Amino acid sequence: MAGIADKMARNQKQIAISEFFEKNKHFLGFDTLQRSIITAVKEAVDNSLDACEEARILPEIQIKISKLDAKKNILELTSEDNGPGIPQKSIEKVFGQLLFGSRFHAIRQSRGQQGIGITGVVMYSQLTTGKPTSVLSKVANDETTVSVNIGLDTRKNKAIKSDQDRIIWKNDDDTLKEHGLRVTTRMKAKYQRGRQSVYQYLRMTSIVNPHAEITFVDPDGEVHHWPRVTERLPGKVDAIKPHPHGIELGQLQRMCKESSDSRMTVFLRQNFSGVSMRAAKELCEAAELDITTKPKSLKPDHIRALLETFQGERLFSGKAVKLLAPPTNCLSPIEEMLIKKGLSKTIDSKFITTMTRIPTVSNGNPFQVEVGLIFGEGMPGDKHVEILRFANRVPLMYQQGGCLLTKAIESVDWRQYGLEQAGGKGVPKGPAAILVHLASTNVQFTSEAKEALSDNEIVFEEARKAMLEMGRGLRKHLEKKKKMAKTREKFELINDILPAIAEKSATILDRPIPNLSGSITRIMSAVICNELTTWNAETKQVDVDITLFNYTARARSYSLLINWPEKEGAVMDRNERGGRKEAMGIWGWKLETLESGEFAKINYSLSGLEKGDWTETEVFFRGSQDVIGATKLDEKMLDEIRRQEEILANNESEGFVSDQTTQTTLIGGAE
Amino acid sequence: MAGIADKMARNQKQIAISEFFEKNKHFLGFDTLQRSIITAVKEAVDNSLDACEEARILPEIQIKISKLDAKKNILELTSEDNGPGIPQKSIEKVFGQLLFGSRFHAIRQSRGQQGIGITGVVMYSQLTTGKPTSVLSKVANDETTVSVNIGLDTRKNKAIKSDQDRIIWKNDDDTLKEHGLRVTTRMKAKYQRGRQSVYQYLRMTSIVNPHAEITFVDPDGEVHHWPRVTERLPGKVDAIKPHPHGIELGQLQRMCKESSDSRMTVFLRQNFSGVSMRAAKELCEAAELDITTKPKSLKPDHIRALLETFQGERLFSGKAVKLLAPPTNCLSPIEEMLIKKGLSKTIDSKFITTMTRIPTVSNGNPFQVEVGLIFGEGMPGDKHVEILRFANRVPLMYQQGGCLLTKAIESVDWRQYGLEQAGGKGVPKGPAAILVHLASTNVQFTSEAKEALSDNEIVFEEARKAMLEMGRGLRKHLEKKKKMAKTREKFELINDILPAIAEKSATILDRPIPNLSGSITRIMSAVICNELTTWNAETKQVDVDITLFNYTARARSYSLLINWPEKEGAVMDRNERGGRKEAMGIWGWKLETLESGEFAKINYSLSGLEKGDWTETEVFFRGSQDVIGATKLDEKMLDEIRRQEEILANNESEGFVSDQTTQTTLIGGAE
Repeated sequence: MAGIADKMARNQKQIAISEFFEKNKHFLGFDTLQRSIITAVKEAVDNSLDACEEARILPEIQIKISKLDAKKNILELTSEDNGPGIPQKSIEKVFGQLLFGSRFHAIRQSRGQQGIGITGVVMYSQLTTGKPTSVLSKVANDETTVSVNIGLDTRKNKAIKSDQDRIIWKNDDDTLKEHGLRVTTRMKAKYQRGRQSVYQYLRMTSIVNPHAEITFVDPDGEVHHWPRVTERLPGKVDAIKPHPHGIELGQLQRMCKESSDSRMTVFLRQNFSGVSMRAAKELCEAAELDITTKPKSLKPDHIRALLETFQGERLFSGKAVKLLAPPTNCLSPIEEMLIKKGLSKTIDSKFITTMTRIPTVSNGNPFQVEVGLIFGEGMPGDKHVEILRFANRVPLMYQQGGCLLTKAIESVDWRQYGLEQAGGKGVPKGPAAILVHLASTNVQFTSEAKEALSDNEIVFEEARKAMLEMGRGLRKHLEKKKKMAKTREKFELINDILPAIAEKSATILDRPIPNLSGSITRIMSAVICNELTTWNAETKQVDVDITLFNYTARARSYSLLINWPEKEGAVMDRNERGGRKEAMGIWGWKLETLESGEFAKINYSLSGLEKGDWTETEVFFRGSQDVIGATKLDEKMLDEIRRQEEILANNESEGFVSDQTTQTTLIGGAE
Repeated sequence: MAGIADKMARNQKQIAISEFFEKNKHFLGFDTLQRSIITAVKEAVDNSLDACEEARILPEIQIKISKLDAKKNILELTSEDNGPGIPQKSIEKVFGQLLFGSRFHAIRQSRGQQGIGITGVVMYSQLTTGKPTSVLSKVANDETTVSVNIGLDTRKNKAIKSDQDRIIWKNDDDTLKEHGLRVTTRMKAKYQRGRQSVYQYLRMTSIVNPHAEITFVDPDGEVHHWPRVTERLPGKVDAIKPHPHGIELGQLQRMCKESSDSRMTVFLRQNFSGVSMRAAKELCEAAELDITTKPKSLKPDHIRALLETFQGERLFSGKAVKLLAPPTNCLSPIEEMLIKKGLSKTIDSKFITTMTRIPTVSNGNPFQVEVGLIFGEGMPGDKHVEILRFANRVPLMYQQGGCLLTKAIESVDWRQYGLEQAGGKGVPKGPAAILVHLASTNVQFTSEAKEALSDNEIVFEEARKAMLEMGRGLRKHLEKKKKMAKTREKFELINDILPAIAEKSATILDRPIPNLSGSITRIMSAVICNELTTWNAETKQVDVDITLFNYTARARSYSLLINWPEKEGAVMDRNERGGRKEAMGIWGWKLETLESGEFAKINYSLSGLEKGDWTETEVFFRGSQDVIGATKLDEKMLDEIRRQEEILANNESEGFVSDQTTQTTLIGGAE
């Protein structure tokens, strides 16, 4: 017995982070040969998109994969972009050193964050082929391009640099390359097609990055091209300070210890977001700290008191100190219209609903959930719905079952929204696809390979709420369709049968056939609204035609309202009836009284949209008698939309979000 | 544009591994408050079990969780063991430094491997409570116990040590603690009950570690105790050298570069497993290397040639150089009997089948798959079967959907084995539970939290094969039951109806009622075998009664064979008919000829077993006419069992495994 503890202790030693990830390369997404090439492409493309966005360049990305040795499964990957390039002295660290990067401490939305991705590719390449990775980097203000080969000393987590040179890099048209990066690497990997493939990864990437131009040359030499859909770069995201609500005790201790600020108020205002001068003073008072205290000198008990004040456990004049929510200009959502566009590009279908929740906060990290649902008869009805997951505009292709976003979908009872689902749990079945995107300053993945989100109650709830709201939209769509179909059936039945009976009776009784239109109206006894939204290829406009029939015996009076994509930049055109704006995206018309048997028409067109952007218009009515084919306007909902408009307008000027408030659209939310 | 690349580069910096994991604490299993306490217990228990096994100590582990502050969700966890303890100078590194450990480079089965687990707990504790973790460590040859508090400097990945002292550590009975470790830590966490709980984790741990004594005091003060089931420690596992088949080029380059060996043959024999002197010489010749070359001096092309030789792409006299498979004494499977015992402890049921595949190799890493299936009417039939996953004797409680082991279960069409399964894919439904254990020198998890296995084709295939074989066993069981039920029904029908008809007819015709036994036999026209395996509480034996009825018109001759747990140490007793051993675990009797209407009985008992160890006996027959309730013996299968016995016997003497051969039991494999 004696001595065994010593003997065991003698075998222990420190390993380098690079040794750790070399052995655990599957943590980084290099578990199978099929996946390894997808991971490599993903890391290269993520970096290119991040760099272009940061440098405010519209990205152009070329990916090329060729088979160097089919028998030994050796592929060569070349990835080229028009990004800002990397200065010569940084190249070896970016490509040859793990945990080296710029985004680890920055609180803002970005694809890469850890400083692992591309170095992992270099490492895997070296491990499986023994070869370094070649890098060409051209920076705008240099005349020449750096050319260098990078390998890794995994025992030391340092780059091994070789063959460094400066060259002239020309484009295909013989002009000088202005700026950009080209990475060429070889690896043991297998190229495959299908649902989990480089092709699919790039296709999905183009959906959520409509500003990117992506070209892919596959191993057979076939060229795939996803053109840019919008010239608008995603909004510039700014890094923000941590918010007091998200700070842990250990972190606060370290911040105090490392602070060189002269007094608490400066420390609180400069190192945290959401802390005004007033709040800083109130925080100090509630925590019983002098505002002139140096943060560095705080004792453990003081720090604990401060944290308790942050968390509202210590009060200032009987209340928790009020803090502003963190600014949300650190986020870059895709936005509803682009999701719609992306989804309809993927799957041709009739009904699309999307939903962008307004940003909220989990542990001091702002985040935002966006969802889209596409439903149509063209898709297979007996299969599970397709799930398209994205985080910070990056498609997630593996680990679907273990992902928070999938769990949020599974937690909804989709049966009440018209989809099949065994036991009201799990992924529903039906002719539908569900898209879900999380934009966050701190996406918590289950592993370094960044393929699934780990559990987080607040994010889960947001995603679930978005699903529920979208589900209600789907149900309304299906109910409306059903109701309209029934009404139409009834109408056709009455129009066929009543005249036949009348004719028969008249013949038998030898009397003239009576005029039945009054009777039909009485039997139908309904006001019916027909809406038709179509793409006019000639005028490049969306044409909307609405007809309101009064099939009742009495005169009726209505106002009609419709939703339209005003926020997304559409312009209303050819609207001869006039009407007025009721709220952002809501237009209304007061109609003249309709006599029994009469109908009224509303026509208008929407410009500034593309095909597929707007395929269905929701019609609401104000009036006493129900209208089949339209929804009774909920005035509270209209007020809510107006209120949220104001909040959003304020946000933009103040960088402030209210907590947990939802940006509801009339479509999804009139419940 | 100019300057942006430089500006971006200036923001880049190196971060420490501890900062990385502090920010990504969810990678380590600290994503939710509920999971954090389970993760902490898991890391402590894994370490205790590993240390005890290495020091050859039967483990005694006490876990205590108490609520320090219910409102703020602060829990205190104390974990104590009787392991070898940790020498004073190593404590700070083991608890306060990430990636420090003894098992990273060792190729053998162990629970911990990365040197992350317990340091992660210390880090999470400090982050959420600001407090260090207290450690008591007593080493056998010291007189006193070290008492020390450990925290982390995450910026440097170094421990912060405080309050170090040497004390006297006494047990509850006032005796001196001989050796062991006690860790006390506080953390933000929530204690919960249910499927994912500390209780469940410890219960599952006790199933696959029957040699451990585990006590758990929950936050309500309730004491749960899982006693030791066997005094036998798992076999001692030895670290092995890497096998040439699993080496990557980059790794081989490094091994050569770092080698101080004087010649190739020494290098090959001392750094790899499976390389004999003959093989070393052949490898050199095939790679066109002089055996006297210094490995350090090898050029890249030489190393590539050597790797190609390893992989059989370069030949020695027309053939790939033959290498021994890696030894498998680096693995410690649970073994079939203990799996059975564990499963029947968990769920009370009738039918249990288990299957331990013989070790095989993936990328030079020996591994072994064990599976168990329990089936019984007592369990819910309309739910998904319960899946119990284990890796290196550690229960896996999260990420079931993303785990290779689950995928192997889902890939089997269980409908053909009598379970419900929509579309023949996914987790089946039915009154069953499936256990699957992977023992491996290199378990590839999807993340540091070690909750799901990442994709690996070879491991997947092994697990799938094990499932298929087990499934066949289940089908046989169900078919046998069904057939027996039908036969019994027929028999009862005939026995009821025929006499009634006979009586009626006799009455009508006024003639005596005929004797029908001959007719019944003719109608049944079958040989029927009844088997009954029961636990005799009095004698502490398993009693087996077999009866063979000849319900045919002719005399019949049979040999009967049965399976029994010989390998697991059972002893056959009270076997008055004698018979003979046909193979390991297979016993046979040649029966005297049975006349029409006669029956024969076989009785014996099995000692050395416990209740639940052996609940059903498979009966095989040699003979021309089918026997209902028994399986016709497949002589090839018997030969296969005999052959595998030989292989296993050779393995034990030579540390050698044949590639991909299966240890088939008659139960599961007679297909």
